[in-house]
Amino acid sequence: MKRVENLKNLMRDIENFPKEGIIFKDITPILESKQGLRDAVDKLADTLEGVDYDILVGPEARGFIFGMPVAYKLNKGFGLIRKPGKLPYKTYSKSYDLEYGTNTLEMHIDTIKKGQKVVVIDDLLATGGTCEAIVDLVNEAGGEVVKFVYLVELEFLEGRKKLKGIEVESILKY
Amino acid sequence: MKRVENLKNLMRDIENFPKEGIIFKDITPILESKQGLRDAVDKLADTLEGVDYDILVGPEARGFIFGMPVAYKLNKGFGLIRKPGKLPYKTYSKSYDLEYGTNTLEMHIDTIKKGQKVVVIDDLLATGGTCEAIVDLVNEAGGEVVKFVYLVELEFLEGRKKLKGIEVESILKY
Repeated sequence: MKRVENLKNLMRDIENFPKEGIIFKDITPILESKQGLRDAVDKLADTLEGVDYDILVGPEARGFIFGMPVAYKLNKGFGLIRKPGKLPYKTYSKSYDLEYGTNTLEMHIDTIKKGQKVVVIDDLLATGGTCEAIVDLVNEAGGEVVKFVYLVELEFLEGRKKLKGIEVESILKY
Repeated sequence: MKRVENLKNLMRDIENFPKEGIIFKDITPILESKQGLRDAVDKLADTLEGVDYDILVGPEARGFIFGMPVAYKLNKGFGLIRKPGKLPYKTYSKSYDLEYGTNTLEMHIDTIKKGQKVVVIDDLLATGGTCEAIVDLVNEAGGEVVKFVYLVELEFLEGRKKLKGIEVESILKY
C-alpha cells in the first residue's frame, strides 16, 4: 500500500483542463520521478501475475507509456493502437462516439494472431469508449481481450460498465 | 552483433508511406516480438552505460515507446515532450520548420530542473528538426542535452549535422 500512497502523492490535479469544469489527473510527476516510474510499472505488472495472455496492446499516446515497460518487464510483445493514418501497414479500423463528434483507432492486421489472448493497458479509464473500440479491433483480428489494466480509474464515470465480462484492474482510484 | 541482425530482420519497409516515393521504416514487428522488444530496449540501454545524466526525455508518440522501458531498466525518470495542447500544466513551447509548414513541441516547465543533464531518446533520427527543437526546450528549462539515442538512423538524411557537439548513438543505420 505504501507504493500506492506514494503514487497518489505524486499525482497532480489540473483544474479546467482540457476544458472548463474538468479536473485533469496529471500523471507526469510520476513519470519524472525515478521511484514513481518504477513503482507505477511494477504495480501494473503485478496485476498480470497468473494471467494467461500472449501480447499487450495499448492506445496512442499514453497507452504506450506504461505498455512498453510492462511488456519489457514481463517479457511480452507490445502492439500499437493508433490514430488514423499513423500506422504504415494494412490496418483494422474502428470509430466510436465521443461527447462531441467521433474518434477512430487503427491496429495493424498482423499485430494479433487468430486465437491470441490480449491484455489492454492504458494510463486512465474514464468513460470506457476507447476500451470498447479496442475490444472490437482485437475481435476483428481473431483475438480475445482477457484483461484491462489501468494506472488510474475515474470510478464515478463508470467506464467498467462498458467492459462487460472482461476483468478490469486499476491501481489508483478516484 | 547478433541482436542487431535480429532487429534488422524484424524491421519492415513500407513503400510510399506516408507519401509517394518514401520508404517508411516500420518498427512495429520489433515491438510485437517479445525478443525483439527486449533486444531493442537492452541495446538502447547499453548506449547509456557510463553516461552521466539525470533524466530521459522523448517526443510524442514514438519517443515514449522506447523512452519508458529504458528509463525503467536504468532506474531514471522520463519526461514527456508533446504536441501543443496535450500537456495539462504550464509549458515551454518551441516551433520548428518542416518541409511543408511548421510543427510545435511542448514540455512542462518543471520536467527539467536547472542544471540537469538530459538524454533524449526517440525511435528514428531523420532530418534532425525535432532534435533541434528539443535542445531548445531543454536549454530554456536550464538543462543540458548530453546525448541523443535512437533505435534507427537514416544516415543519408544527415540529421546528425543539426546536433553539433552533442553525442549521438543509434542502433540500426540505413
